Parts: sequence; C-alpha cells; structure tokens
Amino acid sequence: MPPPERPGPRVAVLAGGFGAARLLDGLVRVCEPHAVTAVVNCGDDFVLHGLHISPDLDTVMYCLAGELNPETGWGLRDESWRALETLRQLGGKSWFGLGDRDLGTHMYRTQRLAEGATLSVVTAELSRRWGVEVRLLPVSDDPVPTRVTIDGGTGDRRGSDGEIGFQEYFVGLRHAVAVRAVRFAGADRARPAPGVLDAIVDAAAVIIAPSNPIVSIGPMLSLERVRRAVMQRREETVAISPIVAGAALRGPAGRLMVELGHEPSVVGVARLYAPVAGTLVIDEADAALAPAVESEGMRCIVTPAIMHTPTDAAALAQAALSAVGCAAPSHC
Amino acid sequence: MPPPERPGPRVAVLAGGFGAARLLDGLVRVCEPHAVTAVVNCGDDFVLHGLHISPDLDTVMYCLAGELNPETGWGLRDESWRALETLRQLGGKSWFGLGDRDLGTHMYRTQRLAEGATLSVVTAELSRRWGVEVRLLPVSDDPVPTRVTIDGGTGDRRGSDGEIGFQEYFVGLRHAVAVRAVRFAGADRARPAPGVLDAIVDAAAVIIAPSNPIVSIGPMLSLERVRRAVMQRREETVAISPIVAGAALRGPAGRLMVELGHEPSVVGVARLYAPVAGTLVIDEADAALAPAVESEGMRCIVTPAIMHTPTDAAALAQAALSAVGCAAPSHC
Repeated sequence: MPPPERPGPRVAVLAGGFGAARLLDGLVRVCEPHAVTAVVNCGDDFVLHGLHISPDLDTVMYCLAGELNPETGWGLRDESWRALETLRQLGGKSWFGLGDRDLGTHMYRTQRLAEGATLSVVTAELSRRWGVEVRLLPVSDDPVPTRVTIDGGTGDRRGSDGEIGFQEYFVGLRHAVAVRAVRFAGADRARPAPGVLDAIVDAAAVIIAPSNPIVSIGPMLSLERVRRAVMQRREETVAISPIVAGAALRGPAGRLMVELGHEPSVVGVARLYAPVAGTLVIDEADAALAPAVESEGMRCIVTPAIMHTPTDAAALAQAALSAVGCAAPSHC
Repeated sequence: MPPPERPGPRVAVLAGGFGAARLLDGLVRVCEPHAVTAVVNCGDDFVLHGLHISPDLDTVMYCLAGELNPETGWGLRDESWRALETLRQLGGKSWFGLGDRDLGTHMYRTQRLAEGATLSVVTAELSRRWGVEVRLLPVSDDPVPTRVTIDGGTGDRRGSDGEIGFQEYFVGLRHAVAVRAVRFAGADRARPAPGVLDAIVDAAAVIIAPSNPIVSIGPMLSLERVRRAVMQRREETVAISPIVAGAALRGPAGRLMVELGHEPSVVGVARLYAPVAGTLVIDEADAALAPAVESEGMRCIVTPAIMHTPTDAAALAQAALSAVGCAAPSHC
C-alpha cells in the first residue's frame, strides 16, 4: 500500500480507550485523518480463551470505523452474543464481554501474532480492513501488562504475589475494589513500536487524550523512550483532563488517583502531566482551578471538555490544537 | 461428582468423527450409556486463531448431545456464523468452519488448557455440560498431530518439510490432493490418557468404529501401549468397515488407502485391522468378499452397515456386539 498523502502538519495523540476514541472521532473532523497518529495503550492487553485481546486499540478502531457500540462504549454495534452465551452455559469464564462479531477481530489478531506478525503490523492490517484512516500504533510490540495490587478479599483471583491483571480488576471486579499499587510489567524492556517515536517527534501537536492518567496514559509514559520523546515536545504537548469537577467522566480514574495518593482534580492531573505537557485543557466546571493548574507549571485552557456529541469532541480537539498554536481547521 | 453406576459389562469404542458419532448414537440405544467409553482420536486437533480445536471429540460430543448439525455432520445445529463472517471480512483465515455457538466450546477448552487442565479433564467437563452420558476420552493428553505429506502444487501451504497439518489437508484443501505419506508426530512419546487402557482392558467388547482407518483410528493405534492393549483384547475386538462397495461412505478413506498402497475394499480394511481385531463387520454389498476377509484371519459378519437412521446405527451396534458374544440389548 502506498503511504497516504500527509498534507500539512501532523498530530500525535496518546490514547487510552473510550475518552480517546471520542476525542479522535472529533479530531478527524478538524484534521486530515491521515495526518493523525494515535499511539494507543496496550497495557490492558491480555489473553483470554487463547485470544489476544487489545481493548483500547479495539475501542479506538471501532469508534473511528463508526462501529463502536454506542450504548456500552466498547465492542461493536449490531452485536450478538451466542459464543459468550454458550461459554457461560459451559461454565466458562464469561466475565469479559466478547461479542460474536468482535471475536472475528480477536481471532484475526491472535492468528497473525501466532504467525509471527507484530502487534503494530496486525493493528495496521485490522485498521485498514475496518476502514480506519487514522494511523493506529500500539505503544509497543512488546508486552507491558498492567498489574494491579488490590486489597484483600478476592484471594481466589490473586496470584501469589497479590497482583491481578488489569482486566480482572477493571472488568472482572468492575473496579469496585481498593487498589494499593499499579505496575507496568515489562516496561523497562519494552521498545516503542516502530513509528511511535517518529510520530511524537514529527508532530506539530501532541495531544494526551482525556484517558485515565494512571492506567491508560501511565503505561505508555512508563516506556522511558516514549516519556523522553514527549518531554522533548513539552511545548507542543497538550493534555486534556479526564477529571471534571473532581470526578472521572467514566471509569475509575478518580478513585485510582485517590488510592494511589493523587488529588482527584484537575490540579492532581496537572501534577501528573506537568513534566511532559506544557498545557492542560480543563472543563469550564473547573475554571476556578485554572490558577492552581498554572501554579503547577502548565498553561491552562478552560473550555467545554465533556464530549456529548462528535461536534463537542471536534470543538474540544480544536481547542487543544489551538492551545499549542495549531489552530486552523484542516491545517492543523 | 460421584461415579455413575456402571451396570453390566462395559464397551469401549475407538472413535473418529462422524461415522463413530453415529455409531455411538446407535450404541447408546442398545447399551447403558454410562457403560460406554469412547476413546477418541485427537490427531486432528489443532490450534487456529489461538483456539484449541478438537474436531473428532466435538463431533462425537455434539452428536451424543443431540446437537450435531444434521446437514454438515460437524458443528452445532441452530448455528450462526457472525464471528467467521467478520473474520472473512478482515481477510483472516476462514477456511475452517467455526460457528458462533461452537466457538464457546473452543474458548472453554483453550482457557482450561491454558490454566493447566489436561485435555481429558476438559473433555469430561465439556461432556458433562453438554449432557453427554457416554464417557469421552481423548486417546492422549499429549499432542499426536497428524502430519500429511502431499504432492506439489500447494507450496504456499507446506512447511519446509513438505508437510501440512491434517486439517489443512482435510478442510483447507478439501482432501482433493494426492497424499504421499501420513505421520503421527509425537506418537512415540504420547502417553494414553488416564482411563484409556483401563477402558480397553475392562471392556466386554471393544468396537473399532467405522472411521477412517488411516487418519482416525491410525493415530490411536500408533500409540504403542494402546495398540498392545487392543491386541490383547483381539478376540473381543470388532471393527466395522468404513469402506462399503469399494468406497468410503464419507471422506477420503478410500482415496487415502489407495494412495498409501492399500486396497480400498473391506479386504484392505481387514489387512489393516487383522493384527488388532478378531472380527470385521462389513455391509451386505460386500458379502461376496467375506471369504477374502476371513482369509486375512478375521471372522467376518455381513450386515447392513450404512447408518441412514439412529435405528440403523443401533442395529449395526447390536450386530457388532453380538459378533463378539455380547448380545443382549441392555445387557451388553
């Protein structure tokens, strides 16, 4: 396949799951999609029933393909559940929702990985087939599994080291347990996937999507070379706070921040991101905290940051781009 | 689970896929199902899309559960194909038919094997959940993959050793290529699964089902201890010919026998089975060959051997049992 034309400056987005997917869906309304690279967390990746599942990559891919299930925020629309129903009847582990259509993606990925393809190659193949124009890159082709140490009471799920896998925490336990520690196993050895560092270095703007800073963005920044690359682009890097009015819009970001000793506010987010990003975008609900954000060393942009619609998402993306001097629609 | 009562003498059946499944479906109409052990070929087992697939075990299990797809002779009835359709749209390998419900079985098996359960334990779990009363045992918990050396012209599928996996030959190429050799990799190291030898030793009758002698029964008899156990029960062992009137009722048995130097007739079957079985059941169409079978050193029983209905299958099973002195219905 010839490389697509890449008109104008490029944008790199550090992306988790749903929040990032929605932001990207807005970004492609104000940018040339081929000029956007999403570097996607794969700390959530895991193997279940023999299948290699990449939850964040799939959420982003399905959303950009216009196929994301709008009711759940994960999986495919127009989905059926016969495999999972059978598995449940057989007494199998059915806590992770795998729809019949969705299984096609996991089967494809698993087979290609078994044939020796890298995750980034498989992701490119899947993206193309799903009709996604944004370039999706897993942050690494090497495993960086997020491991979560939880408080007692679920001993049957925990390994002898007291840790569980991220999806067991996030989906299996519905993140309704206290977390004592989070660790990104393999981060010291994992290499950035081909294209990741270039995408960050070449971008006119680097956006940190409104994803969970601890377990979505954290695993990617735990790769030393990725972190250093983003730090070198700090002036062009803009983070969008996933915390609005002291709570996460979705998922356990707020709770996790508290449990791990961070303030669950835009100020707490600023403290996490200040080393790598020069600018933080916060919602109007948090306008009063803008000075506190700035006192953490970040420029602060106040704008509506809740994406009810793709139009909201496009406006938020535009605001983020503008914040780092990358303003004109279609010329970001 | 307490062991089920096992009234009366026991029957062991060496089983491949469809032919064996139909025979077993008849056998349980004349025997106490709990007294029947099916030792099932797993030379066809393979991993595709990360999933451990056991085609013969599943065909037998689904048939005895009353769930076998009657139109295909494999897979489940009332099936849907959304995962496979998605996989095909993604450009994945879609040559092996995996229905959505069927995937539940493969996902269960794969996960349990990954957790460290043996194939025989997983098979027992699946059988129970599918409501199967016959005891199903894989011939081995160790892999015994059937490898097929085919004539040229399909170089892209062949490994550097000129071999392909059985399912690539059987399903992928629809067994429409000439076979030069068949090999059961691992047979010299594979141990019979727990219960296999006991089932053969304890049985009042050992039935070799009308399965492919080369690639369904062959892999099981390639385990030296299984072969020896059956040979020790030669007088109580009765084989049912899968060849009728010079051709296999289904599948490539006839063609394979020719290509590997055997006569594609009940006499050729007799030559293969004479060392392990004292009796061969042949169809009335082959009545004229009964003396030739007997000159190979086997008793020969002539009876209708084509199973159009479960009633036919029950009569055939009864004839096989009678042939080794295990005659009375419900008291085999």
